[in-house]
Amino acid sequence: MAVAAAIDNKTSRARDPASIAKALAALTAAFGNRVVTAQAVREQHGNTVTWIPNQPPDAVVFPQSTEDVQRIVRICAEHNVPVIPFGTGTSLEGHVNAPQGGVSIDFRDMDKVLAVHAEDLDCVVEPGVTRKALNEHLRDSGLFFPIDPGANASLGGMAATRASGTNAVRYGTMKDNVIALKVVLANGEVIDTARRAKKTSAGYDLTRLMVGSEGTLGIVTQLTLKLSGIPEAVSGGICPFPSIEACCNTAIATIQSGIPIARIELLDALQVRACNLHSNLGLPETSMLLLEFHGTEASVAEQSQRFGDIAAEFGGGPFTWATRPEERTKLWEARHHAALSNFALRPGAAMIATDVCVPLSRLAECVTQTQADIEASRILAPIVGHVGDGNFHLTLLIDMDDADEVKRAKALSERLVERALAMDGTCTGEHGVGQGKMKYLEAEHGPAALAAMAAIKRALDPQNIMNPGKIVAL
Amino acid sequence: MAVAAAIDNKTSRARDPASIAKALAALTAAFGNRVVTAQAVREQHGNTVTWIPNQPPDAVVFPQSTEDVQRIVRICAEHNVPVIPFGTGTSLEGHVNAPQGGVSIDFRDMDKVLAVHAEDLDCVVEPGVTRKALNEHLRDSGLFFPIDPGANASLGGMAATRASGTNAVRYGTMKDNVIALKVVLANGEVIDTARRAKKTSAGYDLTRLMVGSEGTLGIVTQLTLKLSGIPEAVSGGICPFPSIEACCNTAIATIQSGIPIARIELLDALQVRACNLHSNLGLPETSMLLLEFHGTEASVAEQSQRFGDIAAEFGGGPFTWATRPEERTKLWEARHHAALSNFALRPGAAMIATDVCVPLSRLAECVTQTQADIEASRILAPIVGHVGDGNFHLTLLIDMDDADEVKRAKALSERLVERALAMDGTCTGEHGVGQGKMKYLEAEHGPAALAAMAAIKRALDPQNIMNPGKIVAL
Repeated sequence: MAVAAAIDNKTSRARDPASIAKALAALTAAFGNRVVTAQAVREQHGNTVTWIPNQPPDAVVFPQSTEDVQRIVRICAEHNVPVIPFGTGTSLEGHVNAPQGGVSIDFRDMDKVLAVHAEDLDCVVEPGVTRKALNEHLRDSGLFFPIDPGANASLGGMAATRASGTNAVRYGTMKDNVIALKVVLANGEVIDTARRAKKTSAGYDLTRLMVGSEGTLGIVTQLTLKLSGIPEAVSGGICPFPSIEACCNTAIATIQSGIPIARIELLDALQVRACNLHSNLGLPETSMLLLEFHGTEASVAEQSQRFGDIAAEFGGGPFTWATRPEERTKLWEARHHAALSNFALRPGAAMIATDVCVPLSRLAECVTQTQADIEASRILAPIVGHVGDGNFHLTLLIDMDDADEVKRAKALSERLVERALAMDGTCTGEHGVGQGKMKYLEAEHGPAALAAMAAIKRALDPQNIMNPGKIVAL
Repeated sequence: MAVAAAIDNKTSRARDPASIAKALAALTAAFGNRVVTAQAVREQHGNTVTWIPNQPPDAVVFPQSTEDVQRIVRICAEHNVPVIPFGTGTSLEGHVNAPQGGVSIDFRDMDKVLAVHAEDLDCVVEPGVTRKALNEHLRDSGLFFPIDPGANASLGGMAATRASGTNAVRYGTMKDNVIALKVVLANGEVIDTARRAKKTSAGYDLTRLMVGSEGTLGIVTQLTLKLSGIPEAVSGGICPFPSIEACCNTAIATIQSGIPIARIELLDALQVRACNLHSNLGLPETSMLLLEFHGTEASVAEQSQRFGDIAAEFGGGPFTWATRPEERTKLWEARHHAALSNFALRPGAAMIATDVCVPLSRLAECVTQTQADIEASRILAPIVGHVGDGNFHLTLLIDMDDADEVKRAKALSERLVERALAMDGTCTGEHGVGQGKMKYLEAEHGPAALAAMAAIKRALDPQNIMNPGKIVAL
């Protein structure tokens, strides 16, 4: 307790303007015009895609190397000034906001693919490389990086937030696809969390501790990532169902049957309508699964056939599938634009995204109860789900000037989390905690586990300068 | 620094006999004859399968519930007495030894499968359940637990040491197959590291932090494990090769081609000879791959065919494969008995096992250099390898009464680790650190990362009572 109290006193030391000014002066001396304090740039580096107001940092710095980041952290540590890593700014829970001020470290210039080891199915990249840029780089290698959270996020940000997305049911999430990280710690030391070997049992798993820690334990300056072979054949398809339950039960049976499905995505009827409006698809406006199969020609044909049989058992169909790339692309572009397409449902509305994840067996119940709650709340909120993982998203379309509507939407979001937690689920499957979901962590993890997280945070960041005000409050 | 010094003083407090006597008295009052202090039982709970001498605990306690474990830890914490979790005692690096004395917590009586959630492909078990007992329990469910480290280890021990084994290339290691853990912390609090949802991004990954922490951060009292569907079809096969390089290159090409191979095991010629002697197999005594394919009838046939084509390109063959269970069983039993079979090479010898893991592209080089070193060292040491992961084992057959031979064998083991580290590999792929490999961690991780591990250890176990003297020295 004495230790905790001592640290609390330390962290509650004001981030006073004088200290920040000193840090900025030192940073400017070191980095010149790579330190930016223009209002517009600072605001752009605060988060803007949640309920949470924009909280801009005091400055933005653009490092070009691990040594630069180390120098920035050392300067900020000396003056007790927060550091907040910034990738592409696509996070959804206020991860890049600066509630205590400080310095945003923008990885725009650290965007190089440093090595591709084709024989080892891995690559080494800087954190500012986006997933699309990496896959573009890999184009002729026969390899690809499978994690696809929708946005063209930076790989550093994806590691920091434990991103996943549509392919996770087959390829896992960032926790499964990061082999090692180079990290600058709060004390200015640089560590490598692991070697490049595919597996290890040599000590604590610092890699997985850093993945999903949202910059609160250290700043990622290099990533070694697992790559996958581009499948010889890919087929995709769509399958309408009479109900959400039928979609979910089909997904459970598909996974239990061992079909190595690459993508199995749920769209509720409202989401299908939005996609139709936006992408002119002409799909029947009912609950629907979008599928993708990866393998050899023979195996994707077999997988598709077996899936079709399972879907029919649950009243789904007709299952139409296509191996032609242009058809598949149209379908998956529509899925990727699902969020965007929602504007077509209510032009001018604000769009707030949230997600939860529950055990697969509870998914149908959770989604249908949520649909009923959406209706009762008089909120427009289509649902998409990574149904193979039990993970689904609500996109709330809201008139932010209507205080009553905002209140109803917030209450709906709270109940969504409570519902997921009551079903042994989590308050977020892939969006992360940021500022937005901190309030749910005690209910999810219990006070003792949350205290363990705080103890780890204190041990690695006693000054509380690493992205403070996210995940655990000190 | 003041904090660290304070903690160091605390941990250096003697584990004095009086404190231990008080703890044992309190334990006996609480648990009666479930506290055992007989010499034979204590020695059996010290580790006996390494170079390291047996260091028995002061007592062994047999808890029956999480609450029992919590009570044991609280009593031991009060008296500053170490606690050492014990599963089946099959670990290979002195994990269960008691260098500072203390209490071994034997999970023999916590051996219940608490729940199987077939729809969610998971189960909840107590830590004393062995992997074979779990698979026996699952027999009629269509599901199985794939991780197979060879020994019939307890699942608690497998989680604690981040076990993997022959199936890891397809199904991952314990880090990939543990969904959540119930853990008693050093402060006596019980935490659940995660919910039962398949994925989450809600805070620090306490699950992965505990997996592989070898009881030094907390004691696992319950595990939620991912299960897999029993494949519809399984085929196995063997393929001799002209050289180790050809084996390794075939493995790389197989994995790159995207064949979802379930097992791909390397045996060097000496290991094949041992298996022949022990299991009467009549195999050609050359480098060899043992394979297993999981899928549908059509897909295992296709996988086998494609593998055969790849092997032929590297001069391997004939590749003979079998879907008949009795043939496959004979083959895999021989592989499982590989370690045991080595006694046939040198009856009466002591057997010391060690392992390293390197990037796949370096495997051939690492194995052939190691073979040359074995020869130069005049040590009998067959090699088996989980070649899809870049992980291989040496089994050193040694006359422990021959001081010169022991010295040469130890030097060989040291050079093996140095070789692996020089190739961006790890000092252990799956055996863990225990006492035996602590000395390599600084070379592997660097001082800053090791200091971060020590900081985490101190934060969660300031008294250093959780399996002290393993992984990080405080």
